[in-house]
Amino acid sequence: MDWAERCRTYTMTDGTSGFSVSFAGMDFTEASLEGMRARFDRALTGIADIERGEIKNPDEKRKVTHFTDRIAYPGSPEFQEVERFASAIREEGNFDAVVVNGIGGSALGPQLMQFAMNGPYWNELTREQRKHGLKIYFLDNTDSAGFADLLAVMAPERTLHLVVSKSGGTQETKNNLIAMRDFYAERKLDFARFAVAVTMKDSALWKEASAENWLAIFEMAESIGGRTSETAIVGHLPAALTGIDFRRFLAGACAMDEWTRTPDYRRNPALFLAAMWYLAGGGRGDRNMVIVPYSDRLVLLSRYLQQLVMESLGKERDLDGKVVHQGLNVFGNKGGTDAHAFIQQLNDGRDDFFATFIEVLHDARQVRIADGVTMGDYLHGFFEGLSAALRGKGRQVITIRIPELDVFALGQIIALYERTVAVYAEFININAFHQPGVQAYKLAAKDMLALQAKLASALAGRSFTGRAADFAALAGVPEREPEIASLLDKAALNRERCRREFDGGEWVYTVQ
Amino acid sequence: MDWAERCRTYTMTDGTSGFSVSFAGMDFTEASLEGMRARFDRALTGIADIERGEIKNPDEKRKVTHFTDRIAYPGSPEFQEVERFASAIREEGNFDAVVVNGIGGSALGPQLMQFAMNGPYWNELTREQRKHGLKIYFLDNTDSAGFADLLAVMAPERTLHLVVSKSGGTQETKNNLIAMRDFYAERKLDFARFAVAVTMKDSALWKEASAENWLAIFEMAESIGGRTSETAIVGHLPAALTGIDFRRFLAGACAMDEWTRTPDYRRNPALFLAAMWYLAGGGRGDRNMVIVPYSDRLVLLSRYLQQLVMESLGKERDLDGKVVHQGLNVFGNKGGTDAHAFIQQLNDGRDDFFATFIEVLHDARQVRIADGVTMGDYLHGFFEGLSAALRGKGRQVITIRIPELDVFALGQIIALYERTVAVYAEFININAFHQPGVQAYKLAAKDMLALQAKLASALAGRSFTGRAADFAALAGVPEREPEIASLLDKAALNRERCRREFDGGEWVYTVQ
Repeated sequence: MDWAERCRTYTMTDGTSGFSVSFAGMDFTEASLEGMRARFDRALTGIADIERGEIKNPDEKRKVTHFTDRIAYPGSPEFQEVERFASAIREEGNFDAVVVNGIGGSALGPQLMQFAMNGPYWNELTREQRKHGLKIYFLDNTDSAGFADLLAVMAPERTLHLVVSKSGGTQETKNNLIAMRDFYAERKLDFARFAVAVTMKDSALWKEASAENWLAIFEMAESIGGRTSETAIVGHLPAALTGIDFRRFLAGACAMDEWTRTPDYRRNPALFLAAMWYLAGGGRGDRNMVIVPYSDRLVLLSRYLQQLVMESLGKERDLDGKVVHQGLNVFGNKGGTDAHAFIQQLNDGRDDFFATFIEVLHDARQVRIADGVTMGDYLHGFFEGLSAALRGKGRQVITIRIPELDVFALGQIIALYERTVAVYAEFININAFHQPGVQAYKLAAKDMLALQAKLASALAGRSFTGRAADFAALAGVPEREPEIASLLDKAALNRERCRREFDGGEWVYTVQ
Repeated sequence: MDWAERCRTYTMTDGTSGFSVSFAGMDFTEASLEGMRARFDRALTGIADIERGEIKNPDEKRKVTHFTDRIAYPGSPEFQEVERFASAIREEGNFDAVVVNGIGGSALGPQLMQFAMNGPYWNELTREQRKHGLKIYFLDNTDSAGFADLLAVMAPERTLHLVVSKSGGTQETKNNLIAMRDFYAERKLDFARFAVAVTMKDSALWKEASAENWLAIFEMAESIGGRTSETAIVGHLPAALTGIDFRRFLAGACAMDEWTRTPDYRRNPALFLAAMWYLAGGGRGDRNMVIVPYSDRLVLLSRYLQQLVMESLGKERDLDGKVVHQGLNVFGNKGGTDAHAFIQQLNDGRDDFFATFIEVLHDARQVRIADGVTMGDYLHGFFEGLSAALRGKGRQVITIRIPELDVFALGQIIALYERTVAVYAEFININAFHQPGVQAYKLAAKDMLALQAKLASALAGRSFTGRAADFAALAGVPEREPEIASLLDKAALNRERCRREFDGGEWVYTVQ
């Protein structure tokens, strides 16, 4: 098969939307595809089970409904309520900005959506340019510097706050809520008049917001995990507040869902894409997935997919309890910029990846560079040029093309990756919908705070000078010297009582 | 050796600045370090050769002077001239904003610096909050959408343009220059009155800027590559225009240079860090380097290091011409956020990485969360908690601590990684200072533009309808059907003459 025929054979196109994906640049044969047949069958059954509402997250004993809820959602009263709320906020003009306080799945999707649809300088546009859409900020960590940076630009009286946490117990989000509520209280403002909760029915956050009579509470479904929540309320509310057509986004996602229900793997891009991941990485993720969208506005896509793919597929055990240490690394930035950065390694260095290029066909602006040549022609040339160069070196490339960077196409991209992740999980027999590995660090973090309290109480009302080991002994935990040292380092930079001096190759701390 | 002793033994601290790095969480032994001795010696010689001015980039026959130029730079007339120019711009008040038009090494360092020092919302601050520093924007691609996004917020009469290209021939930068000059011309503004060039003496850009009498021209040294140019003029000018103390940044870099000249590898963090990379990845980069700064403002660090490390170390051949396909993958985002994203995989999934955690000890704001517990204490707890959890699973962790996120510490971090890259390159016997792999795609891109011209000339003054194969035949290049198809797809979305319809599983194009 020559290259042209391979391109025709292994490119799937949706003629209606113009979305296409080409697998021609990947290293596989008809025989290797045939070898996947049992896995394709298993995946089709698995996805059908998900969509029929079976328990597909056995650990957490829950259904997985992000593929199906979005079909009915646009016609639901809940959808209407979000649209009504958001358009009232936009039109009344009491608010200029919205702060989304959420982490992980509660932030990454909305961040991707905002950057892709509203661009990098949205907050600098005038209210008219924004068509009354709110400026948007994210508190997606528990870093006091990030909090301080937000306060420097925030007008408290004109800012709406979305507090987004499925369980309502996410500590980082809780911290930002506590801090923001205090900030409002110091200014004699009633935070409840500025606050909206997005959470599961009857969570601690739900109860708190109800008791304090917040502006609104929106319900998150128990059966939709954070990393697949962009097509539900988590994505909807920030989108609607900034004037993004969420209905059309869902239409894109649902169109891709429908396409990827096709039983024939030759016509089903999720099955085929998952097969590429599987074959490229030997079913163990032996190759990194490098995401290179040729679009400034899609620079956050790799970060979004990093969570979706790695949190879903990075698992210690398979569904039979066997230790498998699965995973699939994802990273990337944007093309053509990356050609001046890490592409040197992709071209010449380790052959340990497959690249996924994404091209937007329509140019946002026709910018003439020379006779008959636009800026868009150049970007296209770099795209094709790099793809050809990589293939020339035997490197593997998948190519996605969308006619336009609009919400419909973004919905298609997100749904394609969500479904491919679910398919791949069936291939390797793992639960893609839980995240057991994030418990350990939470416990260890709690333990650090307990240790801090122990140290504080040992030092209550007294002065002390010594090395970390001396403080550890004083607190009765000599075996925890390294952690005590870290607490003292932190204290020396943040508490007036404490300072440190470097002496004889070690820090000596003084607490007064 | 117990954990506390291992921490004491394998943590290096600079008592003066408070910078520390701990290797205790890495998987190595005294014997494995001993096995590195010949490599340490080679690296010390190699770095000394660089600093003595020998030709260390044999392909391009040039010296490598970024480690040494920065010692003398702050005392030079060139330094004074930049400071004088920038402070005049800031004080005169004719300009509100600066656009940095540059790609790769000309953008990544300044972007990191701006985000780290001026924060994510710098452009939204008032002129008073910015202390007269200019707002800053980057054109770091050749994407018409990125260009259009900038135009939507740019006030042309009050915007300064830095055009940054060492060779002066970087196509992406040239495109943005052409487009911006046209944009100014359409508004009857003389672009030269707004433009500053940063380039090598007598480059095409230099000559152009001279001929047109631009506001200023600053010289880039031939012996400093893009990815190591942040401590030279490329970093200096944007920093100075936004009010960043570049002298102090250089002091940090030079302090780290000095520290990492120590011959004893036990006291030299660059030698030790490079040894960790080497041992973790078997000298072949078999483990990905995951960069996790616990700091919102350092979110761009991983992208910066991605270029520095991967473009330097991702090489096909070693210095003896042997095919080695070297490299070292770098990715990351920020902690604690990532604990809600890809950390699930690091904890439970593939054991194919080592993590580098970076902690900022001083909290930008004291935010009380509970009695005796601040937001900073939580972030610290998450940091220590995740580090402990990963180590508990046998995963490898390096920890860097800085007392404060200031320019001095940023200079230390950048210099540490620059020097570690140079050391590692000596370990594996490669040229870290060229990028031969980026030529192929440039040629292929040129070829695409030539093909586009060929297609255009075949279609000049005529109508035609057919599949891509028909157009390829018409243009006399039947073997190039896939590229012709991509050109037609592009044209269908961007040129009035061309449209496409999906028919019988293929696109049919009409050009009128």
